[in-house]
Amino acid sequence: MLKVTLIGTGNISKFLFKVLSDHPEVAIVQVLGRSDKALEHFRDRTAVSIDLREIKKADVYILAISDEAIGEVAHSLEIGSGLLVHTAGSIPMEVLPARVRRGVLYPLQTLSGILPEKMMDIPICIEASEEEDYLILEKLAHFISPRVEHINSDQRKHLHLAAVFANNFSNHLFFLSSEICEDHGVDFDLIRPLIRESYTKVLSQSPYDAQTGPARRGDNKTMDAHLEMLRSPRLKEIYELLSKSIQNTYGKEL
Amino acid sequence: MLKVTLIGTGNISKFLFKVLSDHPEVAIVQVLGRSDKALEHFRDRTAVSIDLREIKKADVYILAISDEAIGEVAHSLEIGSGLLVHTAGSIPMEVLPARVRRGVLYPLQTLSGILPEKMMDIPICIEASEEEDYLILEKLAHFISPRVEHINSDQRKHLHLAAVFANNFSNHLFFLSSEICEDHGVDFDLIRPLIRESYTKVLSQSPYDAQTGPARRGDNKTMDAHLEMLRSPRLKEIYELLSKSIQNTYGKEL
Repeated sequence: MLKVTLIGTGNISKFLFKVLSDHPEVAIVQVLGRSDKALEHFRDRTAVSIDLREIKKADVYILAISDEAIGEVAHSLEIGSGLLVHTAGSIPMEVLPARVRRGVLYPLQTLSGILPEKMMDIPICIEASEEEDYLILEKLAHFISPRVEHINSDQRKHLHLAAVFANNFSNHLFFLSSEICEDHGVDFDLIRPLIRESYTKVLSQSPYDAQTGPARRGDNKTMDAHLEMLRSPRLKEIYELLSKSIQNTYGKEL
Repeated sequence: MLKVTLIGTGNISKFLFKVLSDHPEVAIVQVLGRSDKALEHFRDRTAVSIDLREIKKADVYILAISDEAIGEVAHSLEIGSGLLVHTAGSIPMEVLPARVRRGVLYPLQTLSGILPEKMMDIPICIEASEEEDYLILEKLAHFISPRVEHINSDQRKHLHLAAVFANNFSNHLFFLSSEICEDHGVDFDLIRPLIRESYTKVLSQSPYDAQTGPARRGDNKTMDAHLEMLRSPRLKEIYELLSKSIQNTYGKEL
């Protein structure tokens, strides 16, 4: 039985609690949080506390708190011989104190309101300093997802950066697209099948091969017409920069 | 029985041929193309010709050719009393000669190698000048997809522009994301579940509400760290511009 303590009460903590508390080989011995209100969610099913000094003994302590708080909270914990991990994409493992066994368990997902049922193939990226700690994290990560990857701190921060491009920035483009639709009395729902196509294509081929559109074709006439239609300087700038970037990407072929 | 002639032999023509030639209420009477080789695909199943003067009588003539060629080819056709439509997103209906009944049948999809089986809910955007022509196009469009929308030329060109943002530009961000992964020895496949999440979220909520990430949170520390990590000036510029655009979008809330 693996004893786990969760520190933090946000989305990642709730997600891990939900997935791990049902697992027969895990016992969540405690959840620590900043307020009684935030701990409400967990109170009925495990021990809770707002006092970090009341931390109970566990095999793994999972810090699921905001990036900025990780260093300070980690250094204030008295956890003896347990393994301390954080769950942040862009924070190196070395932010955790060198005096403890340390590691990272990073679920590569935004975890914003998506239910665990749907997340069965999210990659769990793990890192540790010692072989035995890798084994513990591998076991724990496999309780969450079948997909477990060894990713070091440098790779992890680049993975997080890559995720910003693929997820956050593409969502913003969906938003800009919806604004253009709205401004011209067109239902954005018409665009949704196209977004599905983007996604479906990128499952089976590389984004390099999947690229279509005026910039890819070098269709300057359409690009000029589009720039003419865009009244907002911000949209114009984004259109120009991304089109230029696409043309640079395929430049050698033209 | 609706008699249809296809002019053009590319993806859209092949798609329309596949969907319509199986339909009991449609007869594809002819496919016209620029070369015998391009017509090979259709030869066994309908009349074909490379000579526009040999055009047969039909109820609807569908121009499925490149944007630039539409005006010239349309003006050279002798089609009598038939209805002439093009299939282009960014070309106004008025490019077709005023002397004929004219319209537009625009399948809002990139049609690049996706099989018709998967395209059952793609929106077909139709436009015509006369009520009776709308009725014909509605009927024909419903043979292709259950989703038929009346979209005028101004709306259609903005829809096409919106599609560039949602589809072409987001695919390029997937590519940039894959480049970052590759440069740091990380498998881009790890990112794919995140892309699925983007898509799943945008099905059920507005992209405005779905936005996450450092720019949305106003997390300057992470954004500075990301800019530091990006060595390519082009990626830096894209990161800065899209982050600024996200911050502007949510600025009033901060």
